[in-house]
Amino acid sequence: MTMHVPSLGLSQIDLPRPYLLFLGDSIEPAYAKTAFGLRDWAPEFCVGEFALPEATVTAGLPQLTPAEAYARGARALVIGVANTGGVIQPNWIAALTEAIEAGLDIISGMHASLATVAPLKAAADAHGRRLIDIRVPPRGIPVATGRKRSGRRLLTVGTDCALGKKYTALSLARALRARGVAADFRASGQTGIMIAGGGIPMDAVVADFESGAAELLSPDAAPDHWDVIEGQGSLFHPSYSAVALGLLHGSQPDVIVVCHQPGRDHILGLEAFATPSLEEAIALNLQLGRRTNPAIRCGGISLNTAHLDEAESRRVLEATSRSLGLPAADPIRGGPMLDALVDSCLSG
Amino acid sequence: MTMHVPSLGLSQIDLPRPYLLFLGDSIEPAYAKTAFGLRDWAPEFCVGEFALPEATVTAGLPQLTPAEAYARGARALVIGVANTGGVIQPNWIAALTEAIEAGLDIISGMHASLATVAPLKAAADAHGRRLIDIRVPPRGIPVATGRKRSGRRLLTVGTDCALGKKYTALSLARALRARGVAADFRASGQTGIMIAGGGIPMDAVVADFESGAAELLSPDAAPDHWDVIEGQGSLFHPSYSAVALGLLHGSQPDVIVVCHQPGRDHILGLEAFATPSLEEAIALNLQLGRRTNPAIRCGGISLNTAHLDEAESRRVLEATSRSLGLPAADPIRGGPMLDALVDSCLSG
Repeated sequence: MTMHVPSLGLSQIDLPRPYLLFLGDSIEPAYAKTAFGLRDWAPEFCVGEFALPEATVTAGLPQLTPAEAYARGARALVIGVANTGGVIQPNWIAALTEAIEAGLDIISGMHASLATVAPLKAAADAHGRRLIDIRVPPRGIPVATGRKRSGRRLLTVGTDCALGKKYTALSLARALRARGVAADFRASGQTGIMIAGGGIPMDAVVADFESGAAELLSPDAAPDHWDVIEGQGSLFHPSYSAVALGLLHGSQPDVIVVCHQPGRDHILGLEAFATPSLEEAIALNLQLGRRTNPAIRCGGISLNTAHLDEAESRRVLEATSRSLGLPAADPIRGGPMLDALVDSCLSG
Repeated sequence: MTMHVPSLGLSQIDLPRPYLLFLGDSIEPAYAKTAFGLRDWAPEFCVGEFALPEATVTAGLPQLTPAEAYARGARALVIGVANTGGVIQPNWIAALTEAIEAGLDIISGMHASLATVAPLKAAADAHGRRLIDIRVPPRGIPVATGRKRSGRRLLTVGTDCALGKKYTALSLARALRARGVAADFRASGQTGIMIAGGGIPMDAVVADFESGAAELLSPDAAPDHWDVIEGQGSLFHPSYSAVALGLLHGSQPDVIVVCHQPGRDHILGLEAFATPSLEEAIALNLQLGRRTNPAIRCGGISLNTAHLDEAESRRVLEATSRSLGLPAADPIRGGPMLDALVDSCLSG
C-alpha cells in the first residue's frame, strides 16, 4: 500500500433509513449511548426499539418487532448498545437474524465486523441484506504533523467515558449556529457518525495514526469557523487514555469544555479507579493540550445532571461554577447557564 | 468475531535466517534503527547489507548483492529502514524484487503489508518466496482492565522517538541477567520483535486496545521477576503520544528510565516542537504513570552519547546525574555509571 490522499469516506456512507434501534439484553443505560443519541439527535430517523426479554433499558420509543418496524418504514436495525470490547454477543444473533429476515439491513458501530459473525453473514447473503460497519476508519490516514491549522476548535473532554461529551458537543454546535456562528459538529465515535453522517471513529484507528486522524477530523477552515469536536475516552481512563491523548494533541483545541457527571466517583466498570476532580481534569488537559496549542484554555464545565431534579441540578451547577470560577451548564437543560458557557467559549 | 483467548502469536513466528539487511535509499541514520538494532543485538543473524546507490547510511556490514548474500547463507532480506508512515517506497521495489529472485524471503516491520505491493506479491508468488509482515499485532487483544499484575516492571521512556529506548531496555535486561536477576526484554516495536523473537508492535494496535496490548505484553510473573519493556514514542511527540500513554498506563511500571540524546533539541522531523527537558520528561511520565501504579519512580537517565567522545560523554553524564540527583549512563558505553543505574532501578 502506498500513501494516498485521505478520504473522509464515511461522509459518503448512504445509510438505509429510518432505523429500528436494537437494545440487546442491556441492563446498563450507560452502555445504550448509541440508541439514546439517535433518539435525541436524529428522532426523525427512529421508528421504534427492539430488545431481548431480559433487557431493562429502554429508549422510550415504540417497542416493535422487526416485521412491525419494517411495516412502519424501517429499513435498518441499528445496534444501539455498546459493551466493553465492542463485540457481538452470541445471544443477540437470533434477534439480528430475525431482523435480516424481516427485510432490514444491520448497522453496527462495534469493533467486531458484522460479516465475521458467520450466521449473520449467511442470513444477509441469503436475504440480500447489507451488514454495515460504521466503526471503520478511512484508509490512508497520515501520521500527524502538528502543523497549526486555521479556524477555531473546541474539544469536549471528560473525567470518564459515557458521561456527556457527545451531547455537549452536539449542544454547543447547535448553540453556536443559533447565534449565527459558523460551526460544525465533528463526530469521533460511532453514534456521532450515525447522527452527523460523517466523521472518524477515533477508537478504531491504529495507534500510530491516532493524532493524524484527529488532524484530519478538523481540517483547515475559515478563521472564524468553529469545529466542535466530540471527545473520546479520558486521559484518566486506564483503558482509553491513548485515544484521549491522541485526539487532544491532534485536535489542537483553542477551548476545552470538561464534562462530568456529578456522583460518578469511579471510572465506569473499573471500580478501583476514582474519577479525577474537575480541577485535576482541567489542569491535565490544559497541560497536555499546550503541546500543540499553547493558547488552549478551558471554556467551562458541562455537567450531566439527568439524574437530579431541577433545583438540585441548579444547586450543583452553581456550586461548581463558583468553586472553579468558570461557567457550568447542563447542555440538555439549556437556559442562561448554557448561554454563559457559550459566551465563555467564544470569548477568547 | 467473538473474543478469544489472546495469543502472543508473534513469539511463534519462524523467521528465515540469517538476514541480509536492506538500507533502501536512506540518508538519515535515525531511520535505520532496524538495521542497526539487528547488527548490534543479533549479529549472528546478519550476513551483510544491501542499499540503493543513493544511500549514505551504512551498518558497517559487508555490502552484498542479494545473490551474494544468498550464496553466503542468507535466507531473508530484512527491510532495515523505517520512514514516516511506514510505507514501501516505490523506488525500493526493483531491489526487493531482485532479492526475491535471488531466493530470499522479505521481512518487513513497516505498517504497509508487503502483500499489498502488487509487483512484490507477483514476484513472491512466481518464485515461491514469503512476504513476512512483523508489524501485525496478535488477534483478540482485550480492553485494558488496570488490574495490578504480579512481578516487577521497568519501562524505558523518551524525550523523543529514535534516541535509545530499545537499546536501553536491551542493555538493562542484559545487565539484570548478568547479576542473576530473572529478567525478560519485552519488545514493543518491529526491530525489538525481530531481535527477541516475540512481542507486540504497539504502534500497530487499534487505539482502543493500546493499553490492553501493553497489559498483555508484560503478564503476571514471579514477584522478583523483572520485565524490561521497550518504550515507544514519547508523551511529548505530537504524532505518537497516544502510543506512549497507552504503553505507560498498561505497563504499570515500577520504574521508568528516561532516555534522551544530548543535543536533540527538537522532535525528529518536527522542528517546530522542542524536546522537553529531562525534568519535564521525568515529571510527566511519573505524573501520568501514577494512575495505574502509584509507586512508580524514576530509576535514572539513559543518554545516547554515540556522537560524543569518551571525555565529553562522561562530562555530560556526570553533569546530568548531578543536576537531577539520579544516576545517568550511556548503556552502550557501560561501565560504573551503568552499574549505578542498574543499582538504582533495583533499589525500590
